[in-house]
Amino acid sequence: MDFNNNNKRNELILAIDIGGTSYKGALVNKNGEIIYRYKIKAADYGSNEKFLLTIFNLISKLSKKTKLNNQKIIAMSFSVPGAIDTDNGIMKYSNNLKLENLNFKKELIKKYNNLPIFMLNDANAATLGEARKGIAKNYANVVFLTLGTGVGGGIIINHKLYAGSQFMGAELGHMSIDINGKLCTCGRRGCFEAYASAKALVNYTKEGLNKYKDSKMWDEINNDINNVNGSVSFEALKKHPNDLGAKEVVTKYIRYLSEGILNYCNIFRPDIILIGGGVSEQGDYLVKLINDYCKDYNYGFKSTPIPIIKTATLKNDAGIIGAAYFALDNLK
Amino acid sequence: MDFNNNNKRNELILAIDIGGTSYKGALVNKNGEIIYRYKIKAADYGSNEKFLLTIFNLISKLSKKTKLNNQKIIAMSFSVPGAIDTDNGIMKYSNNLKLENLNFKKELIKKYNNLPIFMLNDANAATLGEARKGIAKNYANVVFLTLGTGVGGGIIINHKLYAGSQFMGAELGHMSIDINGKLCTCGRRGCFEAYASAKALVNYTKEGLNKYKDSKMWDEINNDINNVNGSVSFEALKKHPNDLGAKEVVTKYIRYLSEGILNYCNIFRPDIILIGGGVSEQGDYLVKLINDYCKDYNYGFKSTPIPIIKTATLKNDAGIIGAAYFALDNLK
Repeated sequence: MDFNNNNKRNELILAIDIGGTSYKGALVNKNGEIIYRYKIKAADYGSNEKFLLTIFNLISKLSKKTKLNNQKIIAMSFSVPGAIDTDNGIMKYSNNLKLENLNFKKELIKKYNNLPIFMLNDANAATLGEARKGIAKNYANVVFLTLGTGVGGGIIINHKLYAGSQFMGAELGHMSIDINGKLCTCGRRGCFEAYASAKALVNYTKEGLNKYKDSKMWDEINNDINNVNGSVSFEALKKHPNDLGAKEVVTKYIRYLSEGILNYCNIFRPDIILIGGGVSEQGDYLVKLINDYCKDYNYGFKSTPIPIIKTATLKNDAGIIGAAYFALDNLK
Repeated sequence: MDFNNNNKRNELILAIDIGGTSYKGALVNKNGEIIYRYKIKAADYGSNEKFLLTIFNLISKLSKKTKLNNQKIIAMSFSVPGAIDTDNGIMKYSNNLKLENLNFKKELIKKYNNLPIFMLNDANAATLGEARKGIAKNYANVVFLTLGTGVGGGIIINHKLYAGSQFMGAELGHMSIDINGKLCTCGRRGCFEAYASAKALVNYTKEGLNKYKDSKMWDEINNDINNVNGSVSFEALKKHPNDLGAKEVVTKYIRYLSEGILNYCNIFRPDIILIGGGVSEQGDYLVKLINDYCKDYNYGFKSTPIPIIKTATLKNDAGIIGAAYFALDNLK
């Protein structure tokens, strides 16, 4: 029996994805495989202390598991929403968590003093996860766009996460595509996020419903406009390709989304553009619509390769797996 | 005497910057210093053959010089306008040179069979030159924008040139900032190039002159609108800060330019944004105007570092020096 090899197989990363509604913890092996997971509902804390206690509790649940199995945790890594100082392990600001300037790494080191500790922004973690273990794993240069409440994402250059100066880069939702357009929450006008988020899609759908009282979209929501979500227009159009309302909504959304994607094609000429977040559940149907729009506007026309566009595969595990890879990359 | 060291000092890159009006050749040492240069006016050729003869002639002039000085050319490297297949050394298409699918590398190898040969797009070459030998040399992540007839540029990630899939990336002028806006030569609407090029600035200046018949801009052009160039509005405003016409033109141009720059700040969060091309001759005056515009709109406000903005320093030598560094990087 090769003990050395066995030891290596038992070396694990304890990875935690801190989300708005839950904290997902997992033990991840060196192949990026989740071998055990444990989830806690996000606590209704009002202080840094309560937040820390919840995290310590989750760590304790996970580490107990490893002791039973004679496994060893070699690092901890965290996917964190908001502005993170990755180098110093400080959670500078998180709107979701209502935390400010929490020296998270210092608190963790106090308690787990022998372990290397890493943390990175959740969008970057998801990007790294998708790029290493997901459908983009064989591509060197990846632009990852998440279409959820907002538009986030990340950049992989030559298989490595690119996060810009002070790890504050890749705010891919805050590229203006219409400088005279809608006011964005960031203070600028016309941000990609304001036009291509699931939230924007919901608004287009509501407008479409109000305009087309006979649209089949009404069937999707049981005639109650409060039931609108990002899939309503797509689902109605799949079933009824001639529905004017659904067609108008989807066409509008695809135009905005594709214009942003075309920008990223021209800027990065990536090997692949990967789409995640709620809207990505439309899968190949969505990809076909984007490709149909983009094929006529790609810069350089036929002499320029059109990037492959795919929807993300890891979904809710992307953050945990990405956090684990971030630790593995930086342990080397 | 250290012969080995001396030999190394005498190892040179023969670099050629193929431009629209001239071909600039140089011998560049391993420190990126030009030690000899020779320029030929661009020939009025109608064929690949004539183009090649002109290049061979330039190479011959430069290599004769090295023989006199007991120096050794260790590689040739070319900065080429248009679409280049860098891996295979094929000039796929150049609008300026009226060349198509010229297997440039193959022709060069036929004649200079012992030398490694490299070539890259002129915007990428200039980016690499500025990033290694120019004012950006101490920064890891650089966005370089050239504001000339068009808007070009390039990207440096972690001190290395990023050129995307098949070296076709970083068309930084073809990011739409107004998808309902002006039609661009590329077929899309609202490209950054259509708003922030020197050509766009010339158009704004002409509009301003026609609107403000008493503007001091008229003095700058001797009352002849055919004399308008990209510096007219800036020069008038420097001398007459209250001139309404000059102010309107410069304000309009700075807004478009800054909105594009803000996009690149949010996408890359680079350590530095470097501005080259004709408009960059406005130097610190230009940079101050951009900074004043950008400071209120940088994503994340005070928690996000605003990149340093500077104007490029190598100017016409950037392409040659960048081509030389591209060879040096790839010889290693």
